[in-house]
Amino acid sequence: MQVNNLRNLADLAPIHVWESVVARRVEGERITLAVVELAPDSVVPEHRHPSEQLGICLKGALSFRVGEETRDVGPGGTWRILGEVPHEVHVGPEGAVVIDVFSPVRSDWDALPMAEQAPPAWPGRTDGG
Amino acid sequence: MQVNNLRNLADLAPIHVWESVVARRVEGERITLAVVELAPDSVVPEHRHPSEQLGICLKGALSFRVGEETRDVGPGGTWRILGEVPHEVHVGPEGAVVIDVFSPVRSDWDALPMAEQAPPAWPGRTDGG
Repeated sequence: MQVNNLRNLADLAPIHVWESVVARRVEGERITLAVVELAPDSVVPEHRHPSEQLGICLKGALSFRVGEETRDVGPGGTWRILGEVPHEVHVGPEGAVVIDVFSPVRSDWDALPMAEQAPPAWPGRTDGG
Repeated sequence: MQVNNLRNLADLAPIHVWESVVARRVEGERITLAVVELAPDSVVPEHRHPSEQLGICLKGALSFRVGEETRDVGPGGTWRILGEVPHEVHVGPEGAVVIDVFSPVRSDWDALPMAEQAPPAWPGRTDGG
């Protein structure tokens, strides 16, 4: 019997992906699914990685660049970043919560530092009711 | 230059995955990311597929079974379904909106019928503000 295939976000350990970016993740064999909290006015500088990355904004606002495309993104905005395509994010003044999924899995994240335990920024009391 | 890597959920074509289940999807080379709307009191009967499936509930409530595990899931509840593991879902009386991601991509979904155009059930005016 497999266990722990059904878990609440609040029970997943937060890690620091960037200084102002905290993620909680569900790990499969092929996919990493991460709920990612980005601090107000933070910047994820241009970077790239072998894993494909798809995502969607749950809360807040950001400006997303994928390759040569740039767009303001709010809740329901999506992105598709094929492997090794450079991308960067500028977060709005209220911060943002997004979902990012990666394949292959981000095993490189295993080396990242833990973040302080804190309640997830999403869902809040007014989200998803 | 790649185009259409930044799209709004409302601009993605809805398809019928099951009779009472509508999905909008972002397709990568390795991952399908789908925002899935499940009708109130609907049932997704036990099924399985080669693709690994991870997901998270955005809105509403459902009872999720993965293999031998069953759990009531609300916003922030996650699931991990490795390839070929049987799973089923019973949706609560208010319906639900979830994100499901698959790898390999669900190219079998290309044959599914289109759903009627309608605004996405999430985000609503009170979600993600």
